[in-house]
Amino acid sequence: MRIHLQNPDNDPLFDFSRKMWDAAVARAPDIGQGHAVTIGVTHVDFVAAMREAEALVTDVSVIRAMSPIAAPNLKLLFVTNAGLDRLAPFDWLPPGVILMNNRGTHTAKAGEFGVMSILMLANRVPAMVTHQREGIWRKLWGAVVGGRRVTVVGLGALGGATATHAAALGMRVTGVRAHPAPHPACEQVIGADDLDSALPETEFLVLACPLTPATRGLITRKRLECLPSDAGVVNIGRGELIDQDALCDLLDQEHLSGAVLDVFTPEPIPAGHRLWTTRNLIISPHTAADDPATYNPRSLDIFLENLRAWRDGRPLPNHFDIARGY
Amino acid sequence: MRIHLQNPDNDPLFDFSRKMWDAAVARAPDIGQGHAVTIGVTHVDFVAAMREAEALVTDVSVIRAMSPIAAPNLKLLFVTNAGLDRLAPFDWLPPGVILMNNRGTHTAKAGEFGVMSILMLANRVPAMVTHQREGIWRKLWGAVVGGRRVTVVGLGALGGATATHAAALGMRVTGVRAHPAPHPACEQVIGADDLDSALPETEFLVLACPLTPATRGLITRKRLECLPSDAGVVNIGRGELIDQDALCDLLDQEHLSGAVLDVFTPEPIPAGHRLWTTRNLIISPHTAADDPATYNPRSLDIFLENLRAWRDGRPLPNHFDIARGY
Repeated sequence: MRIHLQNPDNDPLFDFSRKMWDAAVARAPDIGQGHAVTIGVTHVDFVAAMREAEALVTDVSVIRAMSPIAAPNLKLLFVTNAGLDRLAPFDWLPPGVILMNNRGTHTAKAGEFGVMSILMLANRVPAMVTHQREGIWRKLWGAVVGGRRVTVVGLGALGGATATHAAALGMRVTGVRAHPAPHPACEQVIGADDLDSALPETEFLVLACPLTPATRGLITRKRLECLPSDAGVVNIGRGELIDQDALCDLLDQEHLSGAVLDVFTPEPIPAGHRLWTTRNLIISPHTAADDPATYNPRSLDIFLENLRAWRDGRPLPNHFDIARGY
Repeated sequence: MRIHLQNPDNDPLFDFSRKMWDAAVARAPDIGQGHAVTIGVTHVDFVAAMREAEALVTDVSVIRAMSPIAAPNLKLLFVTNAGLDRLAPFDWLPPGVILMNNRGTHTAKAGEFGVMSILMLANRVPAMVTHQREGIWRKLWGAVVGGRRVTVVGLGALGGATATHAAALGMRVTGVRAHPAPHPACEQVIGADDLDSALPETEFLVLACPLTPATRGLITRKRLECLPSDAGVVNIGRGELIDQDALCDLLDQEHLSGAVLDVFTPEPIPAGHRLWTTRNLIISPHTAADDPATYNPRSLDIFLENLRAWRDGRPLPNHFDIARGY
């Protein structure tokens, strides 16, 4: 098969290399060997490779920059991001091409970031950092997390890994997802329609779901106000899941005890934006789920796993469902 | 037995109450029942109770304020702090009185704070907070902790719990203690004399040992310089374990990637002190190990456990060894 890996031209930290491909093939020789593989970075590289390529591995930024894509032989498009919301609507996708996202690459890193964020809220770190910024020594006590209630919205790779870590620390986890199937880390799983019933008992709210028409603006001001006044909020999903201004208001009023956010509206956060000075807030620059050391090797493993399924005529584990948006 | 609980007069969050005592007795009726228990808060309360008391449960601040202690019948003195360095030298202790500290109360809370701090360093949170303070959006990537090396100095309640959490995340833990007996969470345990050999491979250095003549100034500037330039430092022991100025220099020069400190020299940190503006540093106000909701109940459980051992003629689990300082 002719496989093309196209690197973005602005982010060398996450570039694919020939060595990386060879290492992935060595881990999965049954499916990795015998392909004609090209790697590109410029627009010229891309156009040339697409004349022949049957599979393309690249990221959202490349697709946005290169569309429309002229690729008469393309069968498989593996996007190295998990959330493809910035590619919607998907009318640019050549007919018949199977689209995959990269869910699963982020599991380990995002799970650790998620449980770290819960521990930071339980230990009042966002408030400590606010006092530090003000140069004020003020005793503030946290509490152990065992037995405390966390609600995790989205039980995919990110939310599932966070829930698993939280349960390992003895927390009581409520999961929220579109179709409330049980999850081993969750005491209960509820549908998104029942979210309101869980909020008054939620000590920690973790947002880890994709951005879709159904989840955009999910966490309204009213829902934030339904949380207990010492609750904390984590967002590792997308900024648009939440009413960000309402969150900032409630943090500044100390209606909430703190927040750890990795995603914002807009990104990058502009200079002078209120987020920079909102109290009891920790800002992570949308890197929670990404570990440069393991990201690309893991992405290639997942791509080859899907290629194997495709060869064998099985359903693709990372098939992206355009209608549901993940 | 006549038991007196003396609360400090400045910290009601950590006061003992009659209800708390009764609850502890209900958990350990075999040893808790049948005592004459008084609870005091003023100097007058203290002096009156000490005329008869055979056991005293109180904290370091009360002992410092009330010394010398006139207590002709005193046999047992249980101090509700773990580190008693501020009571040295121990010439104020009435002869024949058995001194106990509160090691073990802090295990759960300190362990969670310890592993949270490691995760914060692995995720570059101290640098993110510095950028946030400056109002600058700058991408910064962390890495998963699995397989990475942490060195934990002190394997008592605090360090042992931190090591256990770190090992559960797949980290490779080197323990450092005075007498290098094995520890289940540690790949290796070395003596304090061998600390230098571990530093060049240490990605995270966690200080969790008591302050004694042997550990004061243990982490010198030279030792900090032996750490890899992207290493991180956690201190949940005592500020005086480390050359704090050297640490601030190395953080400001980005020779180290970050630090999470709960203890300082001096405390409280004065207004205008360089610590407030040191880069890539998170300041926690010496509350890492304390959870008000569980502290006193747990302290009373530990006191009763020691009282039972004393009644039965067994060694006291929390006996404080003045010579070694913990």
